[in-house]
Amino acid sequence: MAPFYSRGVATTPRRTIWWQSDDAEALVVVIDQRRLPHELRAVTWETLEDVAAGIADMTVRGAPLIGVSAACGMAIAARFDPSLDHLHRAARLLASTRPTAVNLQWALDRALALAAHTPDDERAEALRRFAVALADDDVEQCRRIGEAGLEIIRSIAERSQRTVNVMTHCNAGRLACIELGTATAPVYLAAQAGIDVHVWVSETRPRNQGAALTAWELADAGIAHSLVVDNAAGHLLASGMVDLVIVGADRVAANGDTANKVGTSLKAYAAEVAGVPFYVALPWSTFDPECAAGEAIPIEERDADEVLVVNGGLVAPESTRARNWGFDVTPARFVTGFLTPSGLVRPEAMLASAPT
Amino acid sequence: MAPFYSRGVATTPRRTIWWQSDDAEALVVVIDQRRLPHELRAVTWETLEDVAAGIADMTVRGAPLIGVSAACGMAIAARFDPSLDHLHRAARLLASTRPTAVNLQWALDRALALAAHTPDDERAEALRRFAVALADDDVEQCRRIGEAGLEIIRSIAERSQRTVNVMTHCNAGRLACIELGTATAPVYLAAQAGIDVHVWVSETRPRNQGAALTAWELADAGIAHSLVVDNAAGHLLASGMVDLVIVGADRVAANGDTANKVGTSLKAYAAEVAGVPFYVALPWSTFDPECAAGEAIPIEERDADEVLVVNGGLVAPESTRARNWGFDVTPARFVTGFLTPSGLVRPEAMLASAPT
Repeated sequence: MAPFYSRGVATTPRRTIWWQSDDAEALVVVIDQRRLPHELRAVTWETLEDVAAGIADMTVRGAPLIGVSAACGMAIAARFDPSLDHLHRAARLLASTRPTAVNLQWALDRALALAAHTPDDERAEALRRFAVALADDDVEQCRRIGEAGLEIIRSIAERSQRTVNVMTHCNAGRLACIELGTATAPVYLAAQAGIDVHVWVSETRPRNQGAALTAWELADAGIAHSLVVDNAAGHLLASGMVDLVIVGADRVAANGDTANKVGTSLKAYAAEVAGVPFYVALPWSTFDPECAAGEAIPIEERDADEVLVVNGGLVAPESTRARNWGFDVTPARFVTGFLTPSGLVRPEAMLASAPT
Repeated sequence: MAPFYSRGVATTPRRTIWWQSDDAEALVVVIDQRRLPHELRAVTWETLEDVAAGIADMTVRGAPLIGVSAACGMAIAARFDPSLDHLHRAARLLASTRPTAVNLQWALDRALALAAHTPDDERAEALRRFAVALADDDVEQCRRIGEAGLEIIRSIAERSQRTVNVMTHCNAGRLACIELGTATAPVYLAAQAGIDVHVWVSETRPRNQGAALTAWELADAGIAHSLVVDNAAGHLLASGMVDLVIVGADRVAANGDTANKVGTSLKAYAAEVAGVPFYVALPWSTFDPECAAGEAIPIEERDADEVLVVNGGLVAPESTRARNWGFDVTPARFVTGFLTPSGLVRPEAMLASAPT
C-alpha cells in the first residue's frame, strides 16, 4: 500500500487494475479510487475477501472494472481452493457486493463455466488468464466505443467550427474501466485527433465521482473541463452550452432502458427538451438481454450517511433521515443511440446487434 | 449577535426578520441562515451596508425575504440621510446584490415611489412602516398560497387514503419568506389539518439550502421528511414515490416561464415524464409582467468556490475550475399551475390574474 505517485510526477498507471507480474502467484493491484482526487495510491488484493470488500466499499467502481475485479477475485479464490463448491461460494460472495451492475454477474457466470470445463489443478491459472483476457478485451472494447463516439464529435466539430462541448455524468471514464473508459473514450480519442473538446463534469452527488474521478482523469490527461453541480444540467442544456451528452451504463435492458448512476435520467430528459443528442456508451458485457425492460433492474439503495455526511460534516439537522438510491433508469426513448464496440446502435436495434 | 436559541429550547422565532421594537430607531434582526442547520443565531443590521452585505452573502435569501430585507435597508438608509439622492444611491447598492429575484427591484421601486411622495423628515418612518407592512403582507400572501395548495393536497389524500408525498427543491419555506413560506405553506397547512404528509427534501447543491434550511424548518415543525440528493428526483418520480412537486420562484415571466434555484427545471421535466403535477408557489411580488419570457431573466453566476469547497474540503483536483449558475428557467409548459395569493392560476392566465 505504498504510495506510487506524488503530485507532478508523471507515474500515473496506464491501467486501473493489474497483476503484479505474470507469475502464477502474483497479486492484484488496483488504484484506490476512494482517495482520489487528492491522493493516487495503489491497494494490493491478496484474498477473495479483499476483492469482495474492495468492490463493496468502492475502492473500485464502474461496471466494467467491477466485472474485471470479480474475475480477479475468482482467480485468487481458486488458488486457495480450486473446488467448484468453493468457487460457487466465492461467486456468491462477489455477486452480493453490488446488485445493479450486470457486468459483475456476467463475469462470474463466465468464470464458473470456465472452471467447470477445466481440471482442478489448472483452474487457478485458467481463471487468472481469463481475468487478464477480460481486462485486455475491455481495453479493446473501449477503444471501439471511442471510435464510434469520435465520428460523432468530429462531425459536430466540422459543422460548428468551434469547441465541442460534451456533458457527462458520474465517472464512466478510464477509472470505471481498465483504460480509456466508455463515455470518455470518444473525448480522449477526439483530443488525440486534435479536435478542440471541452467536458462539463457533473459533480455526481452523493459520492462525487464526477468531481473526484472524472475531473481527476481529465486533468491528468490535460483535457479542458469545467465542474458543475448536478443541478446545472438544465441550464447548460437549455442555453446551448452542450453539443452532446455521453454517459456510461451499469445495465442496459433488452429494450434499451438504461440503468446508470442516479441522476442520469434527469440529464436525458433535459437533453430531450433542449434537442441535444444523448448517447449511452457501453461494452457488450453491460447489455442484459435477459432483462426485458428497466422495471426488472434492481436499484441498489446505499447507506444514508453517503448523503448526510460530506467531508466529515453533517449537511442536515441531526434528526433528519436520508434515502440513498445509487441508480436510476433512463427509458430507451430518451436515448439517441448507444456507443458500443459494434459502433452506434439505435435503442430498438440493441437486441439484434448484441454478440451472442 | 448573541445566540438566542439552543438545541431543544423552543425559542425559535416565528419570523425570519423583525424590528427590535416599534421604536423609530429600532434595528433590524434576522436569522443568520448561513449557520443553519447546526446553529440558530440572530444577526442585527445597523446600517444600509449591513443589509446589502447580508443579502449578498446570503445571511438572508429567498425572493420574498430579500424583498422585505431591501425595504428594511431603505428605511435604515433614510435615517442616516433622507434625501432622494441618497435613497436612489441606496437602492442601487441594494439592487446590485442579487440580480435574479425580482422581489428585490419590486420592493426598491415601491420604496422610492413612497419616498418621492413623502416629506424629507417623515421618510425614515414612512419607509420603516412600509417595510413592516410588506412583511405583514408576505405573511398573508403565504397563508393564501398555502390554502390554494392545501386544497390540492387534501384532494390527493382523500383519493389515495395514504400519506401524501410532496417533493420540493431548495428552500421556499418560511426561511425564504417571513412566515410559512411559499412552496411549504401548503405542507404546513396540511399538517395542521391532520393530513398525513411527507416531504422529499432535495439537498440543493451547491449551497445545500434543502439539506440545511428546508430539512431544518420541517424538523423544527415536526413534519415528516427525507433528505435525498438532487440526482434522486428522476428515480423518485418514476417510481411513484411523489404525488406532487411544489417549488418556489425567484421570478416568473409574463408567459409563466419560471426562474428558480438551479436544478428546478430538471425536476419539472422528470415530473412531466412521470405524469406528476408540478406547481410553482409565489407571492405576486415574484411575478414580473415586464419580462415577456424566460430568456429575458438574468441568471446570476456566483463564486466557483461554492461548488469546489464543501465543509472546508476541496471536492475536485486543485487544477479543476468550476462554473456556478444559481438559477435556471423552467418553461411555462412544464408548470401544471401556479399557487398564488389569488388561488391556483394556470400559466396562460398569469398575466390576466396579477393584481395591477
